[in-house]
Amino acid sequence: MTVVINGERLWQSLMEMATIGATEKGGVNRIAFSDLDAQARNLFRDWAEKAGCSVRTDAFGNMFARRPGRNSNAPVVMAGSHLDSQPTGGKFDGAFGVLAALEAIRTFNDANIETAAPIEVVNWTNEEGCIFQPMIGSAVWTGLLPLEDALEMREDREGWSIREGLERIGYHGKAGQMSDSPIACYIEAHIEQGPVLEQAGECVGVVDATQGQHWYDLTLTGQEAHAGPTPMASRRDALLGMSRIALTVDRIAREHPPGCGTVGRVDVFPNSPNTIPGRVQFSSDLRHPDAQVLSEMDAVFRADAKAIADEMGLKLELSPRTYIPPMPFNQPLADAIQRAAEATGKPWRRMYTGAGHDACNIARFLPTAMIFIPCRDGISHNEAEHAEPEHVEIGAQVLASTLLSAANEEINFGASA
Amino acid sequence: MTVVINGERLWQSLMEMATIGATEKGGVNRIAFSDLDAQARNLFRDWAEKAGCSVRTDAFGNMFARRPGRNSNAPVVMAGSHLDSQPTGGKFDGAFGVLAALEAIRTFNDANIETAAPIEVVNWTNEEGCIFQPMIGSAVWTGLLPLEDALEMREDREGWSIREGLERIGYHGKAGQMSDSPIACYIEAHIEQGPVLEQAGECVGVVDATQGQHWYDLTLTGQEAHAGPTPMASRRDALLGMSRIALTVDRIAREHPPGCGTVGRVDVFPNSPNTIPGRVQFSSDLRHPDAQVLSEMDAVFRADAKAIADEMGLKLELSPRTYIPPMPFNQPLADAIQRAAEATGKPWRRMYTGAGHDACNIARFLPTAMIFIPCRDGISHNEAEHAEPEHVEIGAQVLASTLLSAANEEINFGASA
Repeated sequence: MTVVINGERLWQSLMEMATIGATEKGGVNRIAFSDLDAQARNLFRDWAEKAGCSVRTDAFGNMFARRPGRNSNAPVVMAGSHLDSQPTGGKFDGAFGVLAALEAIRTFNDANIETAAPIEVVNWTNEEGCIFQPMIGSAVWTGLLPLEDALEMREDREGWSIREGLERIGYHGKAGQMSDSPIACYIEAHIEQGPVLEQAGECVGVVDATQGQHWYDLTLTGQEAHAGPTPMASRRDALLGMSRIALTVDRIAREHPPGCGTVGRVDVFPNSPNTIPGRVQFSSDLRHPDAQVLSEMDAVFRADAKAIADEMGLKLELSPRTYIPPMPFNQPLADAIQRAAEATGKPWRRMYTGAGHDACNIARFLPTAMIFIPCRDGISHNEAEHAEPEHVEIGAQVLASTLLSAANEEINFGASA
Repeated sequence: MTVVINGERLWQSLMEMATIGATEKGGVNRIAFSDLDAQARNLFRDWAEKAGCSVRTDAFGNMFARRPGRNSNAPVVMAGSHLDSQPTGGKFDGAFGVLAALEAIRTFNDANIETAAPIEVVNWTNEEGCIFQPMIGSAVWTGLLPLEDALEMREDREGWSIREGLERIGYHGKAGQMSDSPIACYIEAHIEQGPVLEQAGECVGVVDATQGQHWYDLTLTGQEAHAGPTPMASRRDALLGMSRIALTVDRIAREHPPGCGTVGRVDVFPNSPNTIPGRVQFSSDLRHPDAQVLSEMDAVFRADAKAIADEMGLKLELSPRTYIPPMPFNQPLADAIQRAAEATGKPWRRMYTGAGHDACNIARFLPTAMIFIPCRDGISHNEAEHAEPEHVEIGAQVLASTLLSAANEEINFGASA
C-alpha cells in the first residue's frame, strides 16, 4: 500500500506553529513550561482532534494523540518529537517530527486508510532542557527517571518546580507510562542539526544509532576581591578556571574525533567588571558514538578539570547531570525506513545522530529509529535554522510510509529492542 | 590645634549604615539607584543635618553636607567617598570615607571648634559602577563627563536611564559642578582593598598617587549551533574566544608587574547547555601605576584580542568604557596627611592606590590625596570585607587632623593641582 502526503499542508502547519513564539530574526522562543509552550500544545491538540484523534496528557505533560486501528489491542505505533524550543531556536527542531506524524494521519484520513494497529503522535515535554535537563519527558515516560523526583525538580533561578510549571500551563495530566499499554515501536523524524546530509547532497538520513553524551554541572569557587588593588599573585579567579576548563573540553573533543565538546552555559558571580569573579557555574557536554572512547574522554575531562582547579586554588564541584550511552537503534525498523527512503528515489544515507533526542531514551526499551532531513548550513538551536520545503516533504513521506508498514504489522522488529 | 575623634561613635554609625542592604554573610548589597541606596542617602542626610550641616544634592545625585566656616567665601575643604556598594560588597568600602568625615564634623562640634573655611562631606553617586561606569558621579561633577550625556546613559538589561534612576529614588537635585564655587582640596579616606598595609603591619597608607586603568566592553560574535551534531571543525564558539581573551588579560598583567588584569563580567548568549554560544559580552580591565607601561599593556591587549578573534572566525567589537591615567596626587596635601599619621605614633607608609576612586577623577582638577587603612586579608568587594575598629579610628583621626589643618588654611597646596 502506498500513500502520498500533502507537503504543502505540512509546510503551512509548520509555518503556523512557528508564529507561536516567533522571534524578530525568524526563529522561535518557546521554552518548555512557558505560556508559549502552552499555546503550541493547544494548537497541536486542536489539530489532532480535528484529525479524529483522541488526545491525552500524562502526569508529566507528555501529549499523545491516538488514531485508532482496526485492532484496539494491537501494540501502538508511535511517532513524534517535541514542540518546545531553545530560547533562540528555529521553526523545525522538534516541530517537524510532531507535525510530520500529524500529516501522516491526515493523509491516511484523506485516503480512507485504516491500519491494523493504532497510531499515536507524541509531543514530549521539555526536550530541549533549557531548564532542568533535556529529553526529560521521555525519561520519565520510560521510567529512566522517577516521576515524583522529576516533578519536584526546581528551576535554577526562580525556584519553581516542574509540577508547578505544568499546573501553571494546564498540562499536568493523569499518570501513565510506557509500561501501561503495549507499544510496537517509536519513530522520530527530525532535522539533522548538523552539516553531513547537506554537504553530501543527500535528502534523507536513515538513523540507526546514537552517540552517547556526558553532561555535567560544574561550580568553581575562588575568592571574590576588588579588581584593582588585589595583586595577581594573591588571586583565586573562578572565571580563569572556567576559561581553562572550557578550552580543555574543546581540546578533548578535537583529540577524539568525531567527538564533540561544548561549554554552553556560564553564570558568573557577582558578575561585575570591578570584582574578581568568586564563583562560576557552568555546563560541560562531551559526546562520542563509541562508548569506550566516550568513557576515555570523560576520564580525561574529570582529571584535567580537577588538576586545573587544584593548580589555581579553586574549589571544584562537578555533578553529573545526564549520561546517555551510545546505542544502536532497532535495525529492522531502520531497514524499513531505508526501504521507504529508497522508494522516494532520492539520495539517502545511514548515519548516527549527533544530537540527543527522546528517541535515544526510548531506544533503550522499544524498537526505535529516526529519520533525518538536511538543514541549511547544519545550523539549529538558532533563529536562522532552515529546512527546504522539498526535504520536509520527502522526510514526512518516508515517515508516513514507514508508519503505514509498522501499523499494518509488516515489520518484524526482532527479539530485542 | 589637636582634636580626638570618637572611634566608638564612628564604629556604631558604620554598623548602623551597614544594616541597610545587609546580607546574610555580613556584607551589604546597596547598588546605586536602588531603594537601599536611597535609604542610605536618607540616613546620611539625617545624620548630617543633626550635625548642623546644610545638605544639598546636585543634578547627578551627588550629596554635599556643609559645615560653615568663619569665612563663607573661603575655598571649601572637602572630604567624603560613597555609600553605594557592589552587589556582594562589604560594610567599609565607601561608607568609611563618608562617615569618617562626618565623625570629624561631629568631633569639631563637640569641641566647639570653628574653622576658617567651610567643610563639606560628600557622598558621590554610583562610585562602584555595577551598572554604567564607576566613579561616574565625580566624573560629572568635575566636568570629565557631560551631565546630559551621563543622565541619558541606560542600564544594560532593563533599559532605564540614570535620570530615571535618580528621579525614582528622589535624588535628582539641582545643577551644580565643582566650578560653581571655590574649593580648596579633596581628601578621601578608604580601606586599602589590597593586602599591602596588613602584610607590613602598618596602620595608615598616605596615598600620594593612583594607578591608571583601561576598561573595555567587548562583544564576541560567532555562530549559535546545536552542541551535539555540529562538528568541532565547523564551530565558531564565542565562549572559547572569551576564554582565550580572559587568559590573555591575566597573562598581560603578570608580564607587567605590578599591573593587574581582570575579566569580571561575562554574559553568554543564549546560555543554554545544549547550544554553542553565539555571542559573549564581557568586560576587560587593565591597570598599572606607570602610564607608559599601561599603554604598552593596552596595545598588547588590543592586538592579542583581535588576533584571537580573527583566528577563531569570531567578530570582535571592542569599545573603550573608562580610561583613567595614572597620576600623582597633591604632594603638600599628602605631606599634611603624613604629619597627621606621624602624630598618631602608629606605623604608616606612602603608597599609590590600586583601586580607582572618585579621588582619581578629582585629582585632575583639585589638590587631592587619600588616606588608607588596612582591611583583613586585603579583601573587599566581598561580604567578608572587614576593617579593625582600631584602624577605623586611626584612619578617621588622621582625616580629622588633616581636615582641621586644611580648613584652617595651614596647608600650601602649591601652584598646580
